[in-house]
Amino acid sequence: MFEGKVKADVLKEVVDVVSTLVDEAKFNVGKDSITVKAVDPAHVAMVDLTLDRGAFEAYKADEGELGVDMDKMKEILRLAKGGETISFSHDEDKNRLVVTVGNTTRRMALVDTAGMSDPKVPSLNLPAKLVVRTDELRQAIRASESISDHIALKASPDGFEIVSEGDTDNVSHMVPKDLLEELQSKEAVRSLFPLDYFSNMVKAISSAPTVTLYLGSDYPVKIEFKIAGGKGEVKFLLAPRIESEG
Amino acid sequence: MFEGKVKADVLKEVVDVVSTLVDEAKFNVGKDSITVKAVDPAHVAMVDLTLDRGAFEAYKADEGELGVDMDKMKEILRLAKGGETISFSHDEDKNRLVVTVGNTTRRMALVDTAGMSDPKVPSLNLPAKLVVRTDELRQAIRASESISDHIALKASPDGFEIVSEGDTDNVSHMVPKDLLEELQSKEAVRSLFPLDYFSNMVKAISSAPTVTLYLGSDYPVKIEFKIAGGKGEVKFLLAPRIESEG
Amino acid sequence: MFEGKVKADVLKEVVDVVSTLVDEAKFNVGKDSITVKAVDPAHVAMVDLTLDRGAFEAYKADEGELGVDMDKMKEILRLAKGGETISFSHDEDKNRLVVTVGNTTRRMALVDTAGMSDPKVPSLNLPAKLVVRTDELRQAIRASESISDHIALKASPDGFEIVSEGDTDNVSHMVPKDLLEELQSKEAVRSLFPLDYFSNMVKAISSAPTVTLYLGSDYPVKIEFKIAGGKGEVKFLLAPRIESEG
Repeated sequence: MFEGKVKADVLKEVVDVVSTLVDEAKFNVGKDSITVKAVDPAHVAMVDLTLDRGAFEAYKADEGELGVDMDKMKEILRLAKGGETISFSHDEDKNRLVVTVGNTTRRMALVDTAGMSDPKVPSLNLPAKLVVRTDELRQAIRASESISDHIALKASPDGFEIVSEGDTDNVSHMVPKDLLEELQSKEAVRSLFPLDYFSNMVKAISSAPTVTLYLGSDYPVKIEFKIAGGKGEVKFLLAPRIESEG
Repeated sequence: MFEGKVKADVLKEVVDVVSTLVDEAKFNVGKDSITVKAVDPAHVAMVDLTLDRGAFEAYKADEGELGVDMDKMKEILRLAKGGETISFSHDEDKNRLVVTVGNTTRRMALVDTAGMSDPKVPSLNLPAKLVVRTDELRQAIRASESISDHIALKASPDGFEIVSEGDTDNVSHMVPKDLLEELQSKEAVRSLFPLDYFSNMVKAISSAPTVTLYLGSDYPVKIEFKIAGGKGEVKFLLAPRIESEG
Repeated sequence: MFEGKVKADVLKEVVDVVSTLVDEAKFNVGKDSITVKAVDPAHVAMVDLTLDRGAFEAYKADEGELGVDMDKMKEILRLAKGGETISFSHDEDKNRLVVTVGNTTRRMALVDTAGMSDPKVPSLNLPAKLVVRTDELRQAIRASESISDHIALKASPDGFEIVSEGDTDNVSHMVPKDLLEELQSKEAVRSLFPLDYFSNMVKAISSAPTVTLYLGSDYPVKIEFKIAGGKGEVKFLLAPRIESEG
């Protein structure tokens, strides 16, 4: 059983995050929260999202699973203004999700979750942690787009740097220590990542003013941020591209 | 003889409506009003538009016909701001329309109206009549676009409903009786229509806050609304798609 | 040696003007100003731009040349808001331009200027001179776009007229004498120009409210306007298209 009401703004945050990696996802509905864990088809990135029941205007659920097509959710979002409430209820007999926005009701077929396993989130011991303004990431991505398909994320006791190296030009976006909300980096670390994945993850951050990054050397990056005004959390994990020594 | 001045906003309403169905149209100019009657090339829909002389800033005309290319009128509209006045005069010797916007004058060849007959508007006895907010139609169309190429318009003593049925999903947009400005429907009626035509007609409504619909079962729908702040009127007629019984 | 700081707005004016005609340009850096002279690949048009050192927030330079890729400058501009300051310094050892916007630094390879000669600006004795509002040019271009690939610029003691002749339609945009800030035209002159070049030149005028035009009969047009709030100047020269006598 699942019945819930949620502001369009909150649903949009969830849909933006999940659709960054997958077209369809299994939403694990629980008594106190909904969680989504998914790996992209190329197995390069993972998302682990939690939305507390407090993020909803109304919430009533037993344990269950809903297989959701993200494009259909985007169609629903186009029907609602940001502050408008969207109502959901699970029609278990027909395995459909009944979604209501204002005077409009859509009865939506759910996706079969049989083939959707819950990916295991690996436990990583990443030596550097930092909290950076989301705007800094956006600016660095914009500057790197014309340079290379990859960016290096670097942390050191001095600050956080995003570097992009091209054939003729290179770009460095340096956020010094005093512009970071938090910095733990005893030694210098550096990992290289595909720009498109990193860019899409950062574009999925709609409201969080800051992001927590966990970094190592030639290790995945963990990107954590809040959604739903703090009543939900997202953890992205992105695999590094190992740099070949020339 | 025809000379007139009209606000760009008013001309835009006329052009939006007529160009929904045809690329070229015969404008019947009279002493007290201009009328346009046209059928789309596929003979699925008809428009019957009247613009009173009171909708013009200045108006002087004998009986006559002007064959107008709608794309050229859209080019004229791009030269004028909404509240700006556009002047027209018919150069009968060269059969050209002389159009002035600010310091710009365009001498525009008219289209030969010889092959353009005035379609007869059929007299229909449609059992249901209702007045609905234009926004409700827009929202219902938006919700139906991803579901099917057709929508059913339904009226009953309870209200007005727009329904779209797809292979896996369906959408219902229900406007209950108390949200309608007027409802006359002794029995339930239902007709199916091509979504693209209905959508384009509704998109052509730029200013009217409400629309009057006349409906039957497997009958055309008549869509009436005001233009030019009430100094003009549009009647669209759209043929139904007869549903095959499975 | 070259080091400078400039507002993004000012840099944008320069880039818009120069990139109208060429993808790469030689910037001649001097003690008191930067100049760019360039001819488009088809040898139809020329630009002669001067930006005074007063247009910069800071400026320090010896005589020198910088070969600049205009697309890279547009990428830099996308990183800065209008009022934001962009810093440049020339790394002479590596022949790179080091560009800083906020926390972002781009090290940009310069283009080899060996093959870039300074075009000679021809001295023309054009009989008509007029000062017209840029908006009048924009409106005339908009009106001509659907008519023909060419426009005629005409001046006479009565005023300035832009004319476009098509197969079925024609457009005249007439700016009478009293709407011109200045008019010197003892006799009537008229020259025909390619619309796309003239349109692109006028689109490159972002801030100047008026433009000075110098015109003759079947002669080039000279288009002069200010940039950087008067601390820079642009002269465009556009070759006429000689009209064949039918």
